[in-house]
Amino acid sequence: MSNEDAKITTDVLIASDKRGIASHGVARLKRYTDGIKNGIMIPDAKFEILTETPNTLTVSGNDGLGQPVSYKTMKMVIEKAKKNNVAFATVKNSNHYGIAGYYSMMALEEKLIGFSTTNSFPLVVPTFGKNALLGTDPISVAAPTNTERPFVVDMATSTVPRGKLEVYDRREKEIPAAWATDSEGNPTTNPGLVLKNVKEKLGGGLLPLGGAKEETGGHKGYGLAMVVEILTGILSGGAFGPNVYGKGKKAPANVCHFLGAINLEAFIPMEEFTNSLDSLIQALHNSQKAEGENRIFIQGEKEFLLAEEQQENVKLFNRVIENIKNVGKSLGVKPDF
Amino acid sequence: MSNEDAKITTDVLIASDKRGIASHGVARLKRYTDGIKNGIMIPDAKFEILTETPNTLTVSGNDGLGQPVSYKTMKMVIEKAKKNNVAFATVKNSNHYGIAGYYSMMALEEKLIGFSTTNSFPLVVPTFGKNALLGTDPISVAAPTNTERPFVVDMATSTVPRGKLEVYDRREKEIPAAWATDSEGNPTTNPGLVLKNVKEKLGGGLLPLGGAKEETGGHKGYGLAMVVEILTGILSGGAFGPNVYGKGKKAPANVCHFLGAINLEAFIPMEEFTNSLDSLIQALHNSQKAEGENRIFIQGEKEFLLAEEQQENVKLFNRVIENIKNVGKSLGVKPDF
Repeated sequence: MSNEDAKITTDVLIASDKRGIASHGVARLKRYTDGIKNGIMIPDAKFEILTETPNTLTVSGNDGLGQPVSYKTMKMVIEKAKKNNVAFATVKNSNHYGIAGYYSMMALEEKLIGFSTTNSFPLVVPTFGKNALLGTDPISVAAPTNTERPFVVDMATSTVPRGKLEVYDRREKEIPAAWATDSEGNPTTNPGLVLKNVKEKLGGGLLPLGGAKEETGGHKGYGLAMVVEILTGILSGGAFGPNVYGKGKKAPANVCHFLGAINLEAFIPMEEFTNSLDSLIQALHNSQKAEGENRIFIQGEKEFLLAEEQQENVKLFNRVIENIKNVGKSLGVKPDF
Repeated sequence: MSNEDAKITTDVLIASDKRGIASHGVARLKRYTDGIKNGIMIPDAKFEILTETPNTLTVSGNDGLGQPVSYKTMKMVIEKAKKNNVAFATVKNSNHYGIAGYYSMMALEEKLIGFSTTNSFPLVVPTFGKNALLGTDPISVAAPTNTERPFVVDMATSTVPRGKLEVYDRREKEIPAAWATDSEGNPTTNPGLVLKNVKEKLGGGLLPLGGAKEETGGHKGYGLAMVVEILTGILSGGAFGPNVYGKGKKAPANVCHFLGAINLEAFIPMEEFTNSLDSLIQALHNSQKAEGENRIFIQGEKEFLLAEEQQENVKLFNRVIENIKNVGKSLGVKPDF
């Protein structure tokens, strides 16, 4: 990989660990080096602009890593939005791009509203369905503030991502019924069973935000995942739904992204926007707490607090450190830690 | 009101009843005539464009009804998107605009992707909070298809809207714990209690999609409501969060909307998009069902099925018919039914 692309990828992974999202951090390194070794991720893939207008862009990642193509696309989207108010881009033929919030947050540096979403491995069952056809399909929106920390929502459209089941499985804990279904499509509290069924494609999977039933709003999480599949895989002309990673482990994944930016000054003076958002955040912070609770959080706040603590040194699990060391050893790179 | 504005408003209300969303249909008529009588809704309010660029628009409804200003704004957004790929508009100083999906679906006529969202009366408690500070803040996205029915998601970002609690209360049924909290902020199964507490501002309210806890994803529904408040009230310079309807029953509500359209041909040939969306819909329809279920629905499908049945005649509850007749009587209009 070029130094530039390697640096971008590394920065996205480290940003994730800093923000406490370990599942998307440097622990992923081995998947990427394996992907490159196996020839399904192309380290020097060309960043290819397919079409371009003053406020849109369609890009192919040509099976390269997800981070460099997404970073470069978002940079261009931001420039377009600064000049032309709103801009959006699709990316196809890409791979896992790390945390969705990395790219939406790039817009904050220019005081724009940032938008980032991606499709992903089909792990989520539609409402009333038995089989996983949709990704955990995260959505991120970032908006700038004045004195408060920025607003950053970065959420899978499933109740939880797969990583949460792995954590509960390791701890031998039962999962809530809103998280996943068994091979017959019934909610289950056994995380190991779900992980096994998903791996062996025996049926079941993760539940959309809202759980198994319409009564608790599961069809809404399912609807949001569909919006993501439409904006990413379908609008880009790439893979969508069950076709993402659909050609097996030895073929490119064809993950697709959708990135956007809104220049809020096309709508309202900057200060008015950021002061209003500050005041909404303050109203929420100062509002009375539910019984037994002592704090109301704003989206992104917990992650900013962690990242502020971890400016210089990032906490990693021992097994992640071992994992990175082993990657280094297998590639003849000696880590200096 | 002008004939034009009255027709637009009527069409939005009837479209809602046709689609089976009775809570937003002609049953609302009395609220509008009351609003006009009380002087807080201005029947001949000026449709005022505050700023305009080739792909953005900011509009003030000047305290008129929500439907005419939203319809006219969306028409302009669609024209802008056709010429300039993507376009967005904010509307402030408006009122309840009916179903969000009406405006996103306007884009379907031109084979565009439509986007519509609005803030609303603060009925929803933030995660870990006791008091309602956010609206049920619905989001709608519509996308065109070829042979299948269009995709239309139109969802409150709370688990359910207030109307659902009213239905359960009338039937003396308990509500699921994911729907609402009591005056101390604890989940409750008593719908009448919640309705009373909300009305008298005693604390508690509706829960965001995902329920009361982060474990079931409640912070995600709360995050989506925040995105809506940012794009509507904050980006428009209007009211947001607790300030919507914040000046009491005798002052304008200052509801705000955000409307958008994406010309998908800026990204991909039309046929490729619509065929791909058809195929995703078919994959979902044909997928195996969970135990005890016999159908997987696509967002909007149930509403289209109902609207197809109700092309000529729309079913209304008797009390709604009485309600309309009484409105007519009070205004000296004799209904011909």
